[in-house]
Amino acid sequence: MISLLQRFEQQTLAESGQKLHQFAAELYPICRSITGDGIRRTLAMIGDRIPLQISEVATGTAVFDWTVPKEWNIRDAYIKDSAGRRVVDFRENNLHVLNYSTPIHATLSLSKLKEHLFTLPEHPDRIPYRTSYYSPKWGFCLTHKQMLALDEDGYEVCIDTTVEDGYLTYGESYLPGQSSEEVLFSVHSCHPSLANDNLSGLTVATSLARLLADIDRRYSYRFLFIPGTIGAITWLAQNTEASKRVRHGLVLTCVGDAGGFHYKRSRRGDAEIDRAAAHVLRHCEEPAEVLDFSPYGYDERQYCSPGFNLPVGCLMRSVWGTFSEYHTSADNLDFIQPDSLAKSLRACVAIVNVLEDNRRYVNQSPYCEPQLGKRNLYRTTGGDSIGTEINARLWVLNLSDGGHSLLDIAERSNIPFFIISEAARILCEAGLLSPSLND
Amino acid sequence: MISLLQRFEQQTLAESGQKLHQFAAELYPICRSITGDGIRRTLAMIGDRIPLQISEVATGTAVFDWTVPKEWNIRDAYIKDSAGRRVVDFRENNLHVLNYSTPIHATLSLSKLKEHLFTLPEHPDRIPYRTSYYSPKWGFCLTHKQMLALDEDGYEVCIDTTVEDGYLTYGESYLPGQSSEEVLFSVHSCHPSLANDNLSGLTVATSLARLLADIDRRYSYRFLFIPGTIGAITWLAQNTEASKRVRHGLVLTCVGDAGGFHYKRSRRGDAEIDRAAAHVLRHCEEPAEVLDFSPYGYDERQYCSPGFNLPVGCLMRSVWGTFSEYHTSADNLDFIQPDSLAKSLRACVAIVNVLEDNRRYVNQSPYCEPQLGKRNLYRTTGGDSIGTEINARLWVLNLSDGGHSLLDIAERSNIPFFIISEAARILCEAGLLSPSLND
Amino acid sequence: MISLLQRFEQQTLAESGQKLHQFAAELYPICRSITGDGIRRTLAMIGDRIPLQISEVATGTAVFDWTVPKEWNIRDAYIKDSAGRRVVDFRENNLHVLNYSTPIHATLSLSKLKEHLFTLPEHPDRIPYRTSYYSPKWGFCLTHKQMLALDEDGYEVCIDTTVEDGYLTYGESYLPGQSSEEVLFSVHSCHPSLANDNLSGLTVATSLARLLADIDRRYSYRFLFIPGTIGAITWLAQNTEASKRVRHGLVLTCVGDAGGFHYKRSRRGDAEIDRAAAHVLRHCEEPAEVLDFSPYGYDERQYCSPGFNLPVGCLMRSVWGTFSEYHTSADNLDFIQPDSLAKSLRACVAIVNVLEDNRRYVNQSPYCEPQLGKRNLYRTTGGDSIGTEINARLWVLNLSDGGHSLLDIAERSNIPFFIISEAARILCEAGLLSPSLND
Repeated sequence: MISLLQRFEQQTLAESGQKLHQFAAELYPICRSITGDGIRRTLAMIGDRIPLQISEVATGTAVFDWTVPKEWNIRDAYIKDSAGRRVVDFRENNLHVLNYSTPIHATLSLSKLKEHLFTLPEHPDRIPYRTSYYSPKWGFCLTHKQMLALDEDGYEVCIDTTVEDGYLTYGESYLPGQSSEEVLFSVHSCHPSLANDNLSGLTVATSLARLLADIDRRYSYRFLFIPGTIGAITWLAQNTEASKRVRHGLVLTCVGDAGGFHYKRSRRGDAEIDRAAAHVLRHCEEPAEVLDFSPYGYDERQYCSPGFNLPVGCLMRSVWGTFSEYHTSADNLDFIQPDSLAKSLRACVAIVNVLEDNRRYVNQSPYCEPQLGKRNLYRTTGGDSIGTEINARLWVLNLSDGGHSLLDIAERSNIPFFIISEAARILCEAGLLSPSLND
Repeated sequence: MISLLQRFEQQTLAESGQKLHQFAAELYPICRSITGDGIRRTLAMIGDRIPLQISEVATGTAVFDWTVPKEWNIRDAYIKDSAGRRVVDFRENNLHVLNYSTPIHATLSLSKLKEHLFTLPEHPDRIPYRTSYYSPKWGFCLTHKQMLALDEDGYEVCIDTTVEDGYLTYGESYLPGQSSEEVLFSVHSCHPSLANDNLSGLTVATSLARLLADIDRRYSYRFLFIPGTIGAITWLAQNTEASKRVRHGLVLTCVGDAGGFHYKRSRRGDAEIDRAAAHVLRHCEEPAEVLDFSPYGYDERQYCSPGFNLPVGCLMRSVWGTFSEYHTSADNLDFIQPDSLAKSLRACVAIVNVLEDNRRYVNQSPYCEPQLGKRNLYRTTGGDSIGTEINARLWVLNLSDGGHSLLDIAERSNIPFFIISEAARILCEAGLLSPSLND
Repeated sequence: MISLLQRFEQQTLAESGQKLHQFAAELYPICRSITGDGIRRTLAMIGDRIPLQISEVATGTAVFDWTVPKEWNIRDAYIKDSAGRRVVDFRENNLHVLNYSTPIHATLSLSKLKEHLFTLPEHPDRIPYRTSYYSPKWGFCLTHKQMLALDEDGYEVCIDTTVEDGYLTYGESYLPGQSSEEVLFSVHSCHPSLANDNLSGLTVATSLARLLADIDRRYSYRFLFIPGTIGAITWLAQNTEASKRVRHGLVLTCVGDAGGFHYKRSRRGDAEIDRAAAHVLRHCEEPAEVLDFSPYGYDERQYCSPGFNLPVGCLMRSVWGTFSEYHTSADNLDFIQPDSLAKSLRACVAIVNVLEDNRRYVNQSPYCEPQLGKRNLYRTTGGDSIGTEINARLWVLNLSDGGHSLLDIAERSNIPFFIISEAARILCEAGLLSPSLND
């Protein structure tokens, strides 16, 4: 059986990064929202790469404390000056429209118009990204420079949208494994032309699902491509039973920028996914920080609500809200790096490897050290130092009392999990180790 | 119902500080000791401000391993030189007499006299404070300069004291609450003209009791104004049953100087009072340090003896024994600051607020986040950041599973308790939260 | 009863250091190995100082996963050039022979010879120490300078060894105490002319056993002088029942150099020996570091294998493998210092004192503080500070609730154990403390 890590390493990091970035570039122009054709088109493109089951949930469906909203679609939007020139044009950048804007077609004075404009004075060249899903409003987002250039005039504003009964759409890719216990990967897919948040997550998750499709899997895997908040709530409301099978989970967001990794722990704080992610990041040779859980953030908010309390963490590079490009037009295709995307995928692969291989073993020769030398598992000339491989064997033998998992051993020894795991494989072959029956 | 914090904030810090300092100034001249008329007069002045029950315990009464001592009273004391001048005069400063000095009237040579003199060579302008409660002695305390100025001469020494069968006197102010469980505030009231140690505690405790008198109280409150050591032992010996109702307790001492706060944990180390005090000090915007329990100190020594092991900590500014003015005439009314006294009172108020409001709640909508927006409890335009108030609501909802108290939530979120508590109030009003029935 | 510390202090540190170094000097020239006459002679010299029981275990005996090897003995070894000069000579330094070398007598070209030479290019003046116990080989160890000086020539190589059926030899000194529970001291005795590793351990252990012989002992003590790895395995295989009586244990190695102390915790990590050693080192006034357990090292590897999991730590000064003299001819008698040896012995004495005196007591006057003053156990004039002795009494009284041991109290108070222990003795005499019946 070929391992996930080997599958990943069959292509170079550079190749992998290029593919990820290219897919992001294809997805970038689409005007997505939490409902509507933008998300449908996005899911179709993901479905070209991995098996994807699409769900459509009707407007008005009650999902816990929420209700599936009307479906939003947009054809065009602009502000024209009295000379008929489009001074703000949706066709140039879909961030120009307040996402979920109600339709309007009217002529307004500059001062009336300004009540519906959003800008970023501190970043005068960037268009902000703003939404109003649940309170009906119309508005435009534009650069502060654009707004300053508007003279007193009568402006024709047109937002050609519909907000009508329809559906909320999401996709899921399910890969069955030996166990019905699931590993959940969840990415939001509702953001329009924003690259790090969250095309990066969409592309990395899609590639990870492709890699996983071809290996023997201990766990079953579920990839959710859903609109933020309402999508996770809808899935949890309609799949409450399935959610109980989630043994480990990860929300992916902002995994494409040049910053170091951040892993936000699950509400539980010490779940296996928390320890696996922290371990992988500690050994990933990039700057990495582990953050405590907090209830604000992405869809871990829903998975970690007290009624569910699922072991779901969140992997990021730069943390949303902390970089100035966040939720602006500067979060574009230049802001995400092929190399960063590829290394984020590699980190996911390494985390999955830990989850798949993390088992308990029992030392079959627990009284004193077994004689590794006679099995050619030790150095031959005494007096010299031993290397990490042999040291890993000693750690695995010493702690494999049925109570310690390989991840426990990797943590306590501060040796990368994949070396500990390889030591366990070799010791099993030598008959010195057996899987614990209670695992 | 008006909260304690609101009551406190009805007057300015400056006003409050002036009142506290003025009361300290009134108490300052009295020559107190662990028994006698000095403490009686002190308690009478406290009794003018708050309801106070006075107890008199007869000399010879056995209190655990101790015995209530004879009562000490003093009228005058001096050292006169052969010219009849008072070179040391009790009327100038009551620290001049070794506290609990036996009576004497005799004429002595300088060398004989010196066997009974206490000075501070390293602080030649200060009179030390010394006591000899349990081993009968006579003596004078004076500045080192005064002693150096004494020539060979015959000195008339007079200490006009009585040490006779009488009573040990203490006062207590009891404020009943909804629960018979008590919050204990204990301050020693046996020190003569010393301001930080412990007129500061007497005045802050008196003001706190006044504030508490006018609010609805969850807990019952007991304020003890007692002589140090023997007073606490006497109260515990005679109120062993009542002591079992002490759910939280605080010894107040040295709370008037300009130094930052110190909170000394109870013997338990993780009692609710320990966590409440640490939380309040972390957010008080003054320097503050939390110290581990140790068995030496003030009356927490008795409350935290192993047979009682009560959850009683000790709030100080500068720690007794660590500042050079401690137990000298330099611990005078200039050494305590109105502003420091007022902020110490405010810290006590904030600690009481935590204790009063620290309950467990249960999220009534625990599956995913409830939709705060439709209840006007969220921001309206998406994409922007949220503030501390909304964040506090998310924390309270996320952790209110019946297992976490509001203080748990305040600690984990690092949000001040009063904001967490306000969030809980608002969420209760919105029907999203209910008090836990098991609290 | 005279205490161990008093016994130790009857001689000065300087005297003690000189004796330890002198014994090391006597042992230094012997060519030891894991079997054979070198170790027999070494044990005989130890047996001249302390009662020692010698065990001989026959070649071929199965000991867990291992087999007692053939016995190795050496008479001579050299490399002669064609002029007949000994260019490498075992008689000059017994490290010159690969330890456990098979016999050979042949003439070889330089290039063939080089396949059997070990040098240290980075330390060209030092002879390395190398062994080949379990894979039959012959070889010489020499300085890199010596090797560079070898011209093309025909070399006569002679290693006059025997590797034959015989015995593995070890010694043990058992000192019975009030309890059959044992304290184990284990030192390896298989290294040839190497001083810090491990003549330092042999001499310190021998002196410690002498000191212990003359005191009343709570525990029984067992000192093992054994060949590394195979010796510990053999002892454990043949004394599995006795090993269950080991309540505390310490491996001593590299305790003679000028470096600060290192204590490596047992596999359990929080055993009493771990806490006792850490406490003694914290108060020893030398640099000291406590290291977590790891499965590579000296014979703690065997005692801490998962089938035994004995509470055995390892006391060192410089950690083996981390100093450049390690396993080279530079680990000679100059490398170990009389003062370091004596202070290592003193640290062992202090650790044993903690183990012997660490009990639980019960405060007989647990309600409030007992009145120490009336028992002359307190200062007499109040208002001044108290010293460490009185503070220790307060700590012992406060925490002696039957749940805290004296070591718990010493740790929490950060007062040296011997002061805490003395406070307990005084309080017992005063009737204020009694040993816990459950201890």
